[in-house]
Amino acid sequence: MPDNRSEAPSTEETEESEEQSTGGGGPAAVTIAYIAESAGVSVPTVSKVLNGRSGVSDATRARIEELIQRYGYRKPPKNRSNLVELVFRELESMWAVEIIRGVERAARRNKVGVLVSEFGLHDTPARTIDETVGRRPQCVLSVAWLSEEERDQLQAKSIPFVVFDPNHELPEGVPFVGATNFRGGQAATRHLIELGHRRIAMITGPDHPFCLARTAGYSSALIEAGLPMEPDLLVKAQLTREEGRAAARDLLSRPDRPTAVFTANDMQALGVYQAARELGLRIPDDLSVVGFDDVPAVAWADPPLTTVHQPLADMAVAATELALALGRGDDVPQVGVEIATSLTIRESTAPPRD
Amino acid sequence: MPDNRSEAPSTEETEESEEQSTGGGGPAAVTIAYIAESAGVSVPTVSKVLNGRSGVSDATRARIEELIQRYGYRKPPKNRSNLVELVFRELESMWAVEIIRGVERAARRNKVGVLVSEFGLHDTPARTIDETVGRRPQCVLSVAWLSEEERDQLQAKSIPFVVFDPNHELPEGVPFVGATNFRGGQAATRHLIELGHRRIAMITGPDHPFCLARTAGYSSALIEAGLPMEPDLLVKAQLTREEGRAAARDLLSRPDRPTAVFTANDMQALGVYQAARELGLRIPDDLSVVGFDDVPAVAWADPPLTTVHQPLADMAVAATELALALGRGDDVPQVGVEIATSLTIRESTAPPRD
Repeated sequence: MPDNRSEAPSTEETEESEEQSTGGGGPAAVTIAYIAESAGVSVPTVSKVLNGRSGVSDATRARIEELIQRYGYRKPPKNRSNLVELVFRELESMWAVEIIRGVERAARRNKVGVLVSEFGLHDTPARTIDETVGRRPQCVLSVAWLSEEERDQLQAKSIPFVVFDPNHELPEGVPFVGATNFRGGQAATRHLIELGHRRIAMITGPDHPFCLARTAGYSSALIEAGLPMEPDLLVKAQLTREEGRAAARDLLSRPDRPTAVFTANDMQALGVYQAARELGLRIPDDLSVVGFDDVPAVAWADPPLTTVHQPLADMAVAATELALALGRGDDVPQVGVEIATSLTIRESTAPPRD
Repeated sequence: MPDNRSEAPSTEETEESEEQSTGGGGPAAVTIAYIAESAGVSVPTVSKVLNGRSGVSDATRARIEELIQRYGYRKPPKNRSNLVELVFRELESMWAVEIIRGVERAARRNKVGVLVSEFGLHDTPARTIDETVGRRPQCVLSVAWLSEEERDQLQAKSIPFVVFDPNHELPEGVPFVGATNFRGGQAATRHLIELGHRRIAMITGPDHPFCLARTAGYSSALIEAGLPMEPDLLVKAQLTREEGRAAARDLLSRPDRPTAVFTANDMQALGVYQAARELGLRIPDDLSVVGFDDVPAVAWADPPLTTVHQPLADMAVAATELALALGRGDDVPQVGVEIATSLTIRESTAPPRD
């Protein structure tokens, strides 16, 4: 009996929209019927495999999965709500509102609503990707992080997704929108070199891809200018004001202290401000400081901070448009995009005194 | 013929859920059938009036509306999506993320999703309340503003709403959640008086209820302490850093300048910082400053700002719980709530030097 059931048709499980062609951008449209025929099974059996349901023998399941993979079959969307879902792990950061704003503006243009959810890793109850899947959004934008399991779950339900400003390495082909972090690090360091600085420190952050890229930009600018890479001028700290302050106190208490500090983010730069004040150093007279991100608060710092502007709202617009295009099955030329950063020169940088 | 149609039953327009009892919290549950009987008309006619459709004579409509009003009939919700909608006019302010965070946390606990929309008054295309109504949320939270027309539209569709931190006068009975602005203004001014200040200026804002309440708190604390209300120490400015700076330049250039300034919001206080720097006055040695709101950036100002903390996340949680309770038809004791502010003393206030 179980053997028989495994190949038995089931109206409930055969969703007619699955019979239609895929988006996927491939030259030939692959239907579920075509996969069933190729595998020598019924359409409902393929449907079971697609929906992760039981009642299919292991061998049959493997054969069908191989064909789904080979033909790049994607379940066409159905019963989608007219919403995009923007997922945050923690709604803490000062730039969350910039991201929401960009997503909301692009969504407004596309006449879809914006669901904002916080997975709240450290809270109970937490939200999970199951809830997201259950809300049937047109697409999902996930800020900084999307685990392999989460990607698999979305893929299984044909919900397209884009990772926004990923802080972890993603396999090739996973859609993302980031910023040109390497070029930003280069621009910040070049600016200090052009002002005449030679002893330029960097306070970098954890080994996230974006920090590594910012640091590589710093190194690259030094090398390009023929300046030595002094290992003790590159220090590592968490991306907080407190850690930036501690790292700066260490750097600036040395007898051969640097004349300029570039930091991996703005919060660290505000920590450098604090350390400088405590040590009686004036910015920019005694020390030049360049941050990264351009969060609103740094324009009001004393002195206003020179920093690399990360175009968060533009990035959010691009990510939303990309996710919606993937949802429509448009032929998207490139699923990974970095939006250009730009150096915002304010009053925290000046030529060195010596 | 038209006369006949006006009272004709229409299955399409008779929604069965309207037959059910109301929420509303009244002692007796009023049904649409009861209203129809009282008015001496058919149920579909009452339904037409409730849904704002034509085909009812003016006299009949007036009679039905009077009964709807008298019995406090509310259409029970139906086909609601499992979402709350949080409406902003402009997603600009630094505290938008705090509000979103509070709403999201309360929503998570109640297992509903959060839709964030920006009406974008100055943008094209703008969103409107029609879209919101079309998305059939459980309830609507509107930040700062909800016009009479918008309230009417939501009411017509029985979508409960709460105005978050209203910046305009609302008729009695319109649900809102705000902060204790009057008490906040009192606490700020009392703190300065306790430090020994006697010439305390206030930079206030436009005639929004929350500004008026903050200003009344300032005046009340002066009167309570037996200090004179000097009209030239109360100046008006927009709630921006630039306007705060201009107002402070004026106040601080006077020969009998104040020794302390209380501002209607934090941005104005940062403007006072700027003006003080420009005039060579040190904070808090030469001038004490107290802001209002406690946006994240002011803790990092130099010196960190003493300010009235507005518990935005708590307010957002309260507003969400209230809106959801109204949506469930719970018996809500009070639909207008002010959540307590608290004074956060940092380093911008000290006793006066003279």
